[in-house]
Amino acid sequence: MLNLYFAPGSCALASLIALEESGLAYETRRLNFANGEQRSPDYLAINPKGRVPALVTDKGIITENVAILAYVAQIAPAARLAPLDDPFDFARMQAFNSYLASTVHVNHAHKGRGYRWTDDTAAIEAMKAKVPQNMGECFALIEEKMLEGPWVMGEQYTVADGYLFTLASWLPGDSVDPSRFEKVSAHHARMLERPAVQRALAAERI
Amino acid sequence: MLNLYFAPGSCALASLIALEESGLAYETRRLNFANGEQRSPDYLAINPKGRVPALVTDKGIITENVAILAYVAQIAPAARLAPLDDPFDFARMQAFNSYLASTVHVNHAHKGRGYRWTDDTAAIEAMKAKVPQNMGECFALIEEKMLEGPWVMGEQYTVADGYLFTLASWLPGDSVDPSRFEKVSAHHARMLERPAVQRALAAERI
Ligand SMILES: N[C@@H](CCC(=O)N[C@@H](CS)C(=O)NCC(=O)O)C(=O)O
Ligand SMILES: N[C@@H](CCC(=O)N[C@@H](CS)C(=O)NCC(=O)O)C(=O)O
Repeated sequence: MLNLYFAPGSCALASLIALEESGLAYETRRLNFANGEQRSPDYLAINPKGRVPALVTDKGIITENVAILAYVAQIAPAARLAPLDDPFDFARMQAFNSYLASTVHVNHAHKGRGYRWTDDTAAIEAMKAKVPQNMGECFALIEEKMLEGPWVMGEQYTVADGYLFTLASWLPGDSVDPSRFEKVSAHHARMLERPAVQRALAAERI
Repeated sequence: MLNLYFAPGSCALASLIALEESGLAYETRRLNFANGEQRSPDYLAINPKGRVPALVTDKGIITENVAILAYVAQIAPAARLAPLDDPFDFARMQAFNSYLASTVHVNHAHKGRGYRWTDDTAAIEAMKAKVPQNMGECFALIEEKMLEGPWVMGEQYTVADGYLFTLASWLPGDSVDPSRFEKVSAHHARMLERPAVQRALAAERI
């Protein structure tokens, strides 16, 4: 059995959507960030990094969205959630996911988690100020150079779509108007029509 | 033919090592960061993110170390650079690589590239001050919880080893004494004995 540790409103939604799309049986475990549950000894035994998502499998635990997304696609090949038979297309999908994880998500984190990179309160405020610009530039690049349409990889829906959907949903909170990005906005609307996405959003809220 | 865009001393060394280990034919293209070549129109046509590495293949261009490393392993299966037949082990390797890309590399970048996240010069200085602590904590976690030994994944050498080697080589410059981390240091020494690593380091310097 698969068990996904997540927190509402977090990047773990990307992995939750992938699991819903996969058709695999899984359960969820919700962490309450407001209570600091991600830093409890129990959770640090699951993921010593103190972050979500973490996927518990029969073989062991997998962390990091990039890894979980490819894993879910690989163990549920019938769901066709990644271009598994073409190393080049698989690499393009992974490049997209890795850009989201290492650049876009990191830029966003400078709004609420600036204390990771400095103890200086004035510097933390200074970082927050640049988040709208950085997130705007990232999504301009995604809009103009990356998102093929209708899905991230073109005609084939993949796990990258749920990841883009998750980070795009942070734009209003980051003071970026999503309507600036026509293709990203159309992608977002298209995602909301998918039953698996609707189920993942409902599972997040329960 | 494969063509790797890199810059000396950068994270692209991880991809360079993977290519050397793979036995694949490839060429390199060196960018001079001091001249800002990564932001030249010519290079932005290759990688609009203005970063290295970028791998030009006959099918198109792949960016992001995480993606390039898995790709090289997949197209050179005989070199056995990743656990390609086991989705769980492959995911564990990817989780390691993604942690390096999204957390460790990002922490390091706050030393020399703080301007990405703020325009405030005092804040940029404040970020630099925390780099030794953050890099020290990341490598303590790698030492205690991640690096199995002798290689990252245990008995099988993988592309994750070249990536760890690359980021570990930044520790002295980040004011972290690598000798604090016994397993990481032994891993580093073991890597330096590999002919492919020696060739990659030589290729970086030419
Ligand atoms: N590189 C990780 C990042 C995971 C991450 O930072 N998750 C956030 C939620 S969006 C978290 O758990 N934050 C809790 C904390 O910082 O205490 C991934 O892509 O999975
Ligand atoms: N997420 C990317 C990061 C690539 C990256 O930041 N590369 C640095 C060199 S270590 C770079 O090209 N910096 C040039 C610049 O910032 O102008 C990856 O893992 O490949």
